[in-house]
Amino acid sequence: MSLIVQKFGGTSVANAERVFNVARIVTDTYKKGNDVVVVVSAQGDTTDDLIDKANEINPNASRREMDMLLASGEQISIALLAMAIQKLGFPVVSLLGWQAGFKTNSTYSAARIKRVETDRLKAELDKHNIVVVAGFQGVNQYGDMTTLGRGGSDTSAVAIAAAMKADKCQIYTDVDGVYTADPRKVPTATKLDAISYDEMLELATLGAQVLNNRSVEMAKKYSVELEVLSSLTNVPGTIVKEATRMEKMLISGVAKDTNVARISVIGVPDEPGTAFKLFSRLSAKDINVDIILQSVGRDGTKDITFTVAAGYLKDALAILNDTFDSAQVIYDEDVAKVSIVGAGMETHAGVASKMFEALYSAQINIQMIATSEIKVSVLIAREDADRAVRAIHNAFFPEN
Amino acid sequence: MSLIVQKFGGTSVANAERVFNVARIVTDTYKKGNDVVVVVSAQGDTTDDLIDKANEINPNASRREMDMLLASGEQISIALLAMAIQKLGFPVVSLLGWQAGFKTNSTYSAARIKRVETDRLKAELDKHNIVVVAGFQGVNQYGDMTTLGRGGSDTSAVAIAAAMKADKCQIYTDVDGVYTADPRKVPTATKLDAISYDEMLELATLGAQVLNNRSVEMAKKYSVELEVLSSLTNVPGTIVKEATRMEKMLISGVAKDTNVARISVIGVPDEPGTAFKLFSRLSAKDINVDIILQSVGRDGTKDITFTVAAGYLKDALAILNDTFDSAQVIYDEDVAKVSIVGAGMETHAGVASKMFEALYSAQINIQMIATSEIKVSVLIAREDADRAVRAIHNAFFPEN
Repeated sequence: MSLIVQKFGGTSVANAERVFNVARIVTDTYKKGNDVVVVVSAQGDTTDDLIDKANEINPNASRREMDMLLASGEQISIALLAMAIQKLGFPVVSLLGWQAGFKTNSTYSAARIKRVETDRLKAELDKHNIVVVAGFQGVNQYGDMTTLGRGGSDTSAVAIAAAMKADKCQIYTDVDGVYTADPRKVPTATKLDAISYDEMLELATLGAQVLNNRSVEMAKKYSVELEVLSSLTNVPGTIVKEATRMEKMLISGVAKDTNVARISVIGVPDEPGTAFKLFSRLSAKDINVDIILQSVGRDGTKDITFTVAAGYLKDALAILNDTFDSAQVIYDEDVAKVSIVGAGMETHAGVASKMFEALYSAQINIQMIATSEIKVSVLIAREDADRAVRAIHNAFFPEN
Repeated sequence: MSLIVQKFGGTSVANAERVFNVARIVTDTYKKGNDVVVVVSAQGDTTDDLIDKANEINPNASRREMDMLLASGEQISIALLAMAIQKLGFPVVSLLGWQAGFKTNSTYSAARIKRVETDRLKAELDKHNIVVVAGFQGVNQYGDMTTLGRGGSDTSAVAIAAAMKADKCQIYTDVDGVYTADPRKVPTATKLDAISYDEMLELATLGAQVLNNRSVEMAKKYSVELEVLSSLTNVPGTIVKEATRMEKMLISGVAKDTNVARISVIGVPDEPGTAFKLFSRLSAKDINVDIILQSVGRDGTKDITFTVAAGYLKDALAILNDTFDSAQVIYDEDVAKVSIVGAGMETHAGVASKMFEALYSAQINIQMIATSEIKVSVLIAREDADRAVRAIHNAFFPEN
């Protein structure tokens, strides 16, 4: 008998029909003799509706009260899913985050899970109950409700799988797996049977938006085998696991990220400490910098160019204008980052140059380049992004 | 410094404007130097909307899951009220039933409060926080969410007032106090300054619908002084307290209850055990019987007539037809119970006959009569009910 953790997002439980669809997937898994723990998010737009209600009353409400408010969303969805499972005739119990043992720190709205105390979960499984757990939430040392922030339900599912030593953690989403590129943009994109944690991490960071990064990091740390699959099609998804266990593909995917802006500081003094001064002030304001490029100095000055998430552009510009009186700050919002990711890169030369060749053939100009052991990213004009993804994908995955 | 518990119902927090109205009442009380604990219900139609969602999925869902679902309603309203209080610039913390220490038994959907563990409440008041508590909910010995059933938030407020030895428990509602009759039906009805627990209990049972009975019973048991008042008008309400402390009025009010049906069983055997047989079967199905009238036997048979709440009529008829083969069961749904309540009755003769005289003068036929130490009830045709209330009210409270 296996223990399987299944996670379903808000769109999967948006209405009664979809709740029953989820209930059937869960009970089919249970019928095969498995223990099943199900993690669900709030229904459809519930969280957004609650945020609207809060903003109408007090846009500066404390995060503690915001978490109290938002945690009600999952409470509704776990109860409804449990009712649907009862209707199908199976034993079930729903548990809130605190009931399922989720102990977090006190960073309201972005809490970190400290541990999952599994007594209640184990007791319910011993009673042969299907256990439906509210994702995204926990309780801190004061006994107050906390929420885990973006992608929190994925993290909840992986945390349970890790704490309970589950055999598998299935993340149900609206795509049926991880593709070599976005299938809506690249018709020849193919689904991967398997991908390593590191590749998945790079893809998630790069905007593939299939799995939340925190959950992949946690899965890697505790060796939880993930499967990304669709709640609408009954086909195997993509397995995310240790790289050593699978054949290394040259590259596993091409990803695009348009949530990016480029900033250049022109003519800063070419002296020690300039970069430190610049980036420490940005990091003090929690602005994460991605690609950094520094020109060779000229006339006692140099230029520093870097990228930030688009949402931080305004804040970053304000800091830069305060920090450098004499320098000129220019920026470009119409950019995109296109990346290839693959564990095979480490052992195969020429992967980067193959990517650059594809972009040259498509007459796409490269503004910046950044590389890691398993990733090559380029910054290009945003209007060229989809064309770039297709050109690179065709180079690495030629059509049959 | 006093400790004041204030309770606001669902209509009082139905939208952002009303939430702020409540926030102002609460903070005005706090500004006067009082400790304040506020108990709120779910917003407006939230509970009904959640019940609709549940029924769409599974009308026979377990009560445990129903309680899990419904408890989310108060979670939303306490967070929003706390946010409004923050906006007005006051320190506040919201607490769910389990956080506020509400320990209940495990009768889901109709749980009884076993005790309120006040550590957290006291700690928050020591920090000079206004404490906003979710009414209607608690947690049982298994750590599962329970709800208290009808009027549960009133009971929550009184339970906190009792456990914390509060100086006063104010129940805010949509009327500004307890009246000698329904002011919408009887223009000459006047507001009472004070009423005893027992009178309030009779009035609540009789359909005055101002305060839930369980809360009045609990207030009486723990000598919690209640005040019924309006959240919309800034005037003193009606105090509910021990009778000994106030001047006894002859009668304190006239109440009407149309949620009633009359059933007659004609021709049951005139032998010992008949009534027991009949009423024990009804009580086994949790059907409460109100007024009972038994005719003198004739031809070896007798007739038993009684009233039940209208909602139980169908179930009661089914049981009766199963129980008595030979007897004839007839019923009347078009009836109403009109009652007068007053602690002064015990010491004043002629109260009942004054009521009967008023009904005779109005040419209203009395079908059944029931009396207690502080109450006289009559069953009449439903179409006569409002006219009866006015006639009786005029007899006891003549217009000036």
